[in-house]
Amino acid sequence: MPVTIRANELGRFGVDRPTLLLDEERARRNIVRMAGKAAAAGVQFRPHFKTHQSAAVGEWFRDAGAEAITVSSVDMAAYFAANGWQDITVAFPANVREMALIDALARDIRLHLVVDAPEAVTALAHDLRHRVHVWIKVDVGKRRAGIPWDETERIRDLAQRIHAAKGLDFAGLLTHAGHTYDAPDAAGVVAIHSSSLARMRQLQAALRAGGVDPGVISIGDTPGCSLAQSFTGADEIRPGNFVFFDLMQARLGVCTNDDIAVAVACPVAGKSAARHELVLYGGAVHLSKDTCRDARGRPTYGCLATWTGDRWGSPEPGAPVISLSQEHGLVQVEDELFHSVDIGDLVIVLPAHSCLAADLYSEYLTLRGKRLPRRRSNDRVTTPATAT
Amino acid sequence: MPVTIRANELGRFGVDRPTLLLDEERARRNIVRMAGKAAAAGVQFRPHFKTHQSAAVGEWFRDAGAEAITVSSVDMAAYFAANGWQDITVAFPANVREMALIDALARDIRLHLVVDAPEAVTALAHDLRHRVHVWIKVDVGKRRAGIPWDETERIRDLAQRIHAAKGLDFAGLLTHAGHTYDAPDAAGVVAIHSSSLARMRQLQAALRAGGVDPGVISIGDTPGCSLAQSFTGADEIRPGNFVFFDLMQARLGVCTNDDIAVAVACPVAGKSAARHELVLYGGAVHLSKDTCRDARGRPTYGCLATWTGDRWGSPEPGAPVISLSQEHGLVQVEDELFHSVDIGDLVIVLPAHSCLAADLYSEYLTLRGKRLPRRRSNDRVTTPATAT
Repeated sequence: MPVTIRANELGRFGVDRPTLLLDEERARRNIVRMAGKAAAAGVQFRPHFKTHQSAAVGEWFRDAGAEAITVSSVDMAAYFAANGWQDITVAFPANVREMALIDALARDIRLHLVVDAPEAVTALAHDLRHRVHVWIKVDVGKRRAGIPWDETERIRDLAQRIHAAKGLDFAGLLTHAGHTYDAPDAAGVVAIHSSSLARMRQLQAALRAGGVDPGVISIGDTPGCSLAQSFTGADEIRPGNFVFFDLMQARLGVCTNDDIAVAVACPVAGKSAARHELVLYGGAVHLSKDTCRDARGRPTYGCLATWTGDRWGSPEPGAPVISLSQEHGLVQVEDELFHSVDIGDLVIVLPAHSCLAADLYSEYLTLRGKRLPRRRSNDRVTTPATAT
Repeated sequence: MPVTIRANELGRFGVDRPTLLLDEERARRNIVRMAGKAAAAGVQFRPHFKTHQSAAVGEWFRDAGAEAITVSSVDMAAYFAANGWQDITVAFPANVREMALIDALARDIRLHLVVDAPEAVTALAHDLRHRVHVWIKVDVGKRRAGIPWDETERIRDLAQRIHAAKGLDFAGLLTHAGHTYDAPDAAGVVAIHSSSLARMRQLQAALRAGGVDPGVISIGDTPGCSLAQSFTGADEIRPGNFVFFDLMQARLGVCTNDDIAVAVACPVAGKSAARHELVLYGGAVHLSKDTCRDARGRPTYGCLATWTGDRWGSPEPGAPVISLSQEHGLVQVEDELFHSVDIGDLVIVLPAHSCLAADLYSEYLTLRGKRLPRRRSNDRVTTPATAT
């Protein structure tokens, strides 16, 4: 059968404009695989839910045995607490402006917070009435948030403050080796993972030698957790993107093309024969403006995928998304594919970065036609569970 | 008074996480200015509402005399029709998958559609029961959608098809000279504007000479409409971004810094003294990953603005947003500013591109503390006005 990119079968589910698709089978397989890897390694599995932000998808993690989760905002914690999750880490420096909501959550669930500054510890100790578990955010090389791993004195000082604060339970050392995303390839990812974990162990030992209980070690980036053979020294892993993966991860060698579990269905709105371009109803507000590198190293917003009749197949390297404006997407396609679709047909775009693309929608459409609601990052939750 | 970037006065409105701010006074001034310019030129003012997507902000346009509007999707048309707008152009190639909703809208309001392909004309003529006004989308150099302006034969053929179709009223020739955004400076914008309009007039004359009624001319990009001294030959203008403007427009010389009417308030979540960086609670899901060029030509996601006590002031070129992940933003700041803010303070980010940043939120907070709801691009509207 010739390759096709025409996905008009989706019309039976009412797909008539850009629509976020979810392959439940692949997502469940990704979840089970990572949960199994954590279990085999004897580490706590605390998946990051910022990628999917859906109570329904959360249930698939529960089916795989997950009981503890990670989120990236207090709002997101409130959403999942309202959906039955009782053990949540907010893996973002504690926002001292949200003490009332944090305290309400701490009353209802086992809440973990992250800090990298003494001011935050002081504020938490002063303002919270309910106990929270507090982690020190350590920077092992990402150079974003956290105290650099080799600044042992600062970290020891912070640990002592947390140990000394009433109402705060010191949990341990937490890092996100997100610089794995900048690695050239899979071997580079593994090298960063190994050195990051070694740095965390070294820090842990230094604190212990200095007479401070360093707690446990929590790590968590999808590239490292997917490719690593071992988590020696880690007590907990917090990967997130792996539930869906995306073109960026596939290009980095972290997953196979068959692991990519979300895509966006877009109507073809126009065709330029002169430029060999499809004009999609599908722009920056449907895909996000994040990019990854294509096979030739050029930045791309995504690419079309083949369609097998009931699901998408492989990314089509000959059909990159080369330009996005608010609602328009331009796809440069090779001759045969260009002539195989008409205006009004549906095609499948694999976005560069699934976390940002998915956050543009308030629901998923599964390949079996189920619509699963999801929150978007700037939605607010007010429920009895979170009212102060 | 020394320059300050600390905007903690916003705390009185409950700002405790990334929040989309709107300076109503500036937005109203931007609207009145453009409406006045259209009136003075004797052209129809049909502002594009994709930038604000808010019924409340739409009322400010009504206050300035606007009666006709532009949108970029059928959903957006349905939203504004449900909010009392009776004359709407969907300035995106007609999506033949949404005929039922288009037909319902055409029943209730004066609906204008845009086409650039015979297939779309055939579909509209066949499927719609209610009359619509149809424009031909012309490409004057943007190279996105539309038929190139110098392919007169194709355009004449399409115009004849529309004229011949029962139920379709041929309206005219419509273009978006969006390549003004790629101009090096204001003079470059004006040059593109002038040549684009000349091309449209030339096309119009060629069609007329060929015996086809070419209808009227509609143009509309914010850079061109803001800087042009005249619209000779145009019958209608459709700018959109000017209601808010943004850093991109200011850097291009299209507006002054004092015209920028939206910004995002972000809590400071951390500080790196070694790197002179602030870590903001404010990432790609709060600002979008769109970029513009800074003074040195480097891409930037935005920059901090000064704060005058009750509104933001000028962009701080010494405080660019250099990195965005999902929730984190990194701002590189000069020494004095770095020491002037603490963890938990609020700062103001001017995003590179206001249309995409605003679309991440479901409400605006005005500087006087009013919360104005807005739709987001993937929201769906179902109202009596749009049910089939």
